[in-house]
Amino acid sequence: MKKLALILTMIVFQGCTSVDPLPSWNDTAAKHTILDFVHAVTDPASTSYVAPDQRIATFDNDGTLWCEKPNYPQVVFVVARLRALAQETLDLRAEQPYKAAWDKDYAYFRNLNTRALLTIVLQAHTGMSQDEFSEQARAFLGTARHPRFGKPYTQTVYQPMLELIEYLSANEFKVYICTAGGMGFVRTFSQQAYGIPPENVIGSSAELEFQMHHGQPVLIRKPALVEPMNNREGKPVNIRLHIGRRPILAVGNSTGDLAMLQFAKSPHRPSLRLLLHHDDDKREYAYDQGARKAQQVAKERGWTIVSMKEDFKTVFAFEARE
Amino acid sequence: MKKLALILTMIVFQGCTSVDPLPSWNDTAAKHTILDFVHAVTDPASTSYVAPDQRIATFDNDGTLWCEKPNYPQVVFVVARLRALAQETLDLRAEQPYKAAWDKDYAYFRNLNTRALLTIVLQAHTGMSQDEFSEQARAFLGTARHPRFGKPYTQTVYQPMLELIEYLSANEFKVYICTAGGMGFVRTFSQQAYGIPPENVIGSSAELEFQMHHGQPVLIRKPALVEPMNNREGKPVNIRLHIGRRPILAVGNSTGDLAMLQFAKSPHRPSLRLLLHHDDDKREYAYDQGARKAQQVAKERGWTIVSMKEDFKTVFAFEARE
Repeated sequence: MKKLALILTMIVFQGCTSVDPLPSWNDTAAKHTILDFVHAVTDPASTSYVAPDQRIATFDNDGTLWCEKPNYPQVVFVVARLRALAQETLDLRAEQPYKAAWDKDYAYFRNLNTRALLTIVLQAHTGMSQDEFSEQARAFLGTARHPRFGKPYTQTVYQPMLELIEYLSANEFKVYICTAGGMGFVRTFSQQAYGIPPENVIGSSAELEFQMHHGQPVLIRKPALVEPMNNREGKPVNIRLHIGRRPILAVGNSTGDLAMLQFAKSPHRPSLRLLLHHDDDKREYAYDQGARKAQQVAKERGWTIVSMKEDFKTVFAFEARE
Repeated sequence: MKKLALILTMIVFQGCTSVDPLPSWNDTAAKHTILDFVHAVTDPASTSYVAPDQRIATFDNDGTLWCEKPNYPQVVFVVARLRALAQETLDLRAEQPYKAAWDKDYAYFRNLNTRALLTIVLQAHTGMSQDEFSEQARAFLGTARHPRFGKPYTQTVYQPMLELIEYLSANEFKVYICTAGGMGFVRTFSQQAYGIPPENVIGSSAELEFQMHHGQPVLIRKPALVEPMNNREGKPVNIRLHIGRRPILAVGNSTGDLAMLQFAKSPHRPSLRLLLHHDDDKREYAYDQGARKAQQVAKERGWTIVSMKEDFKTVFAFEARE
């Protein structure tokens, strides 16, 4: 009986092979590289075959899965929180980062590095329970809109990447997000926006403290980062701590992803490294800032550079749904 | 077609309900509590129904899934490593913990607390790559034998717990290990011994450092612990960091598991807490040391205390296979 169900399932899958799994990708070299790689590692007859339990894929989030311009969505979220705090306590409006938040001076935040931004996130939500933080994040994402596209941030996600995640999952890959952004923040929308469950999200995080409040267990956010912060060399470290294995496929867009891309390599095993290039100011944004080193290494090593302009037929999920 | 496969799969599952999923458990209250809980949370018509994505179960390892007496298997592993280092460098034999290892003085290690033991683990394997550490752990587990039972440690695992893990997995639970022991160590055998993949193992860990050696990415073990250590209040913190959700079922055996057991509770959702009591010196060991506080809280709160003597029909996996 189990065998019959399996055969039927196989027929269903076989029947699907003629359907293009990546319709929002143009018919370019990048798409063929992806298809060839997935065929090779899933074909038991191939010398490149990789057993399902070893098919780990890791994706950066900001600028790789969703739009990070003109501001990281989490920065917009934290600015709202800082403004609420400055609303309650007038004196705060004279100090940074409250002043910049109060003045909606986003340039102030754009000039900070990742650690400085995460330190502000810690400061803004410290002492709050992790459950309350998640609720506030969900409320923000439910109402906030991207300033240029007028859509919820959870719809300014890249349709070709959604298709890639689905294609990999259908081919028994375990797909993870590995973001320098807040792990708790991304976990509030990863299932809905990407079909990736919260336990498959690795990110930066506040330290948490276990407390009992009136007999109820709660985890309180502390004003310190879990180390290593999940950026640059911290990404492979945290991938190992969370997953215990090395990815065979990694996708990023900036120099913060370089170590993760390098890490997706084992001797005697194929690997695929994709670096998304933001070169499409008509449909999205064109920028190389923070990505030049990664682009240079990608060229030297022959990694696959994905051009948004050339390789994406559709850019955003909201376009695909319209 | 997909629907037909689903219906057939459902028939297969329905057909299995007459088979006892827990044959190594005696027909006692503990077994019925488990069966009733799983039925309730998986029955869509029940007010206690819990959606599959929320069915998280966490198990302690030492003394909960496998035998921790007379010594933690990882302590035996680290003693072998310390002896090898003392073999190379004579002077080390005069200093602790090398002296105790050289003299096979296990009492020395039994008198240390968890942090002191983990600090010795850090010391013994520092500077080694995580891949090499895993290889050494696998080699040890392949040859070492339990001193009383004469079996590999991976067979001195509790058969009733293996059945419980399988039963939960068949009911769409996501099953995790949450151990104070070394995460990297437990990950080398979790799939083979328990059917739990490495990414579902949460434990204590050395800090890791990303390095490139001759163009190959490696992670090197550093002489510091990732904080919080995965014991006591560190367990719920790390469960949240790894999984992002709260368990509805937690299984432990000692006071080191108390916070994890407390954490397996949300308002408006059922939960099950199991505390294994080692009261069977004929078939295993009888001891309450390190567990008294947990036993007291379990009694006060009405958690389920599992008696090895009364509730386990078979104790070890190697017995079930004989």
